[in-house]
Amino acid sequence: MGKESLIVLGFDPGTANTGWGVVERRGNRLAALGHGCIVTSAKDDTHVRLRRIYDEACLLIRRFQPDVVVLEELFVNVNVRTALAVGQAKGVLYLAASDLPVAPCEYSPLQVKRAVTGYGRASKIQVQEMTKVILGLARIPRPDHAADALAVAITHAHQCAMVVADDVSRPRSTP
Amino acid sequence: MGKESLIVLGFDPGTANTGWGVVERRGNRLAALGHGCIVTSAKDDTHVRLRRIYDEACLLIRRFQPDVVVLEELFVNVNVRTALAVGQAKGVLYLAASDLPVAPCEYSPLQVKRAVTGYGRASKIQVQEMTKVILGLARIPRPDHAADALAVAITHAHQCAMVVADDVSRPRSTP
Repeated sequence: MGKESLIVLGFDPGTANTGWGVVERRGNRLAALGHGCIVTSAKDDTHVRLRRIYDEACLLIRRFQPDVVVLEELFVNVNVRTALAVGQAKGVLYLAASDLPVAPCEYSPLQVKRAVTGYGRASKIQVQEMTKVILGLARIPRPDHAADALAVAITHAHQCAMVVADDVSRPRSTP
Repeated sequence: MGKESLIVLGFDPGTANTGWGVVERRGNRLAALGHGCIVTSAKDDTHVRLRRIYDEACLLIRRFQPDVVVLEELFVNVNVRTALAVGQAKGVLYLAASDLPVAPCEYSPLQVKRAVTGYGRASKIQVQEMTKVILGLARIPRPDHAADALAVAITHAHQCAMVVADDVSRPRSTP
């Protein structure tokens, strides 16, 4: 039947800004346990910035003990320079999550929009508004990267809820 | 006057294949201390592949005690998917090198071609031939990724030699 609660740590990866958000699912209810943004300075060397992101991600994993880490997939229409910078941040986030028993997974911006608003062409502000409503927050989480990270965590929590519901509702064939 | 020898660990980063090569400079002579390729399977999850690259890179750093780690920059004309995959590998390589006293650095394919063959439009095979000659190897190093990694290590060793020569040849102003 699985455990009662599921804790999802979502990331919106980037070398300059890596948003993070933690969502807990208990039954049909979702709640935000925390959110924020790991900010690094362009004045610092790349290895210093990536070490910072890695160390902070490890701290978050120790603090919130998530069942799974999920990442927002990069929007396809970006340039190679952006893809490289995002890839580097993703690399160290995957590494930070590599000791968890469940493999990290990724959701595309389209999947996130659909999961959070029910509509794949929703605007950024619509996604943020629905994130606020779903998590029962007083206001839209800031900065944007943190809101995006919460939205991808919600996406995974919904996905798991659907899998469980589907599993329960289907008639079982005897093995 | 600096230390007698310089050890450079070069990487040609990629999620499927990360070439590595170690070059030692003593005076004007360069020698290869080792080369190879970290291969990961597309059947494995991303976090498993990146953990493998990170662990192997850490082992190489412990084994060869390089003064510096250098990486080949990605050729600009690639697609976003490739850039993301290379970026992820670069992220964990930067992390593995983040405890060395000298910051890792990158050289473009153009810089590597110029440094190894003296000609920015040299072919891949010309670069590999010159890598063999410069390092006094019996044959062209294999696989290609290892040869590329040795070439970027040579590029850095040359660069440092030039900086030292320049430093020595210039008349010093009294402070």
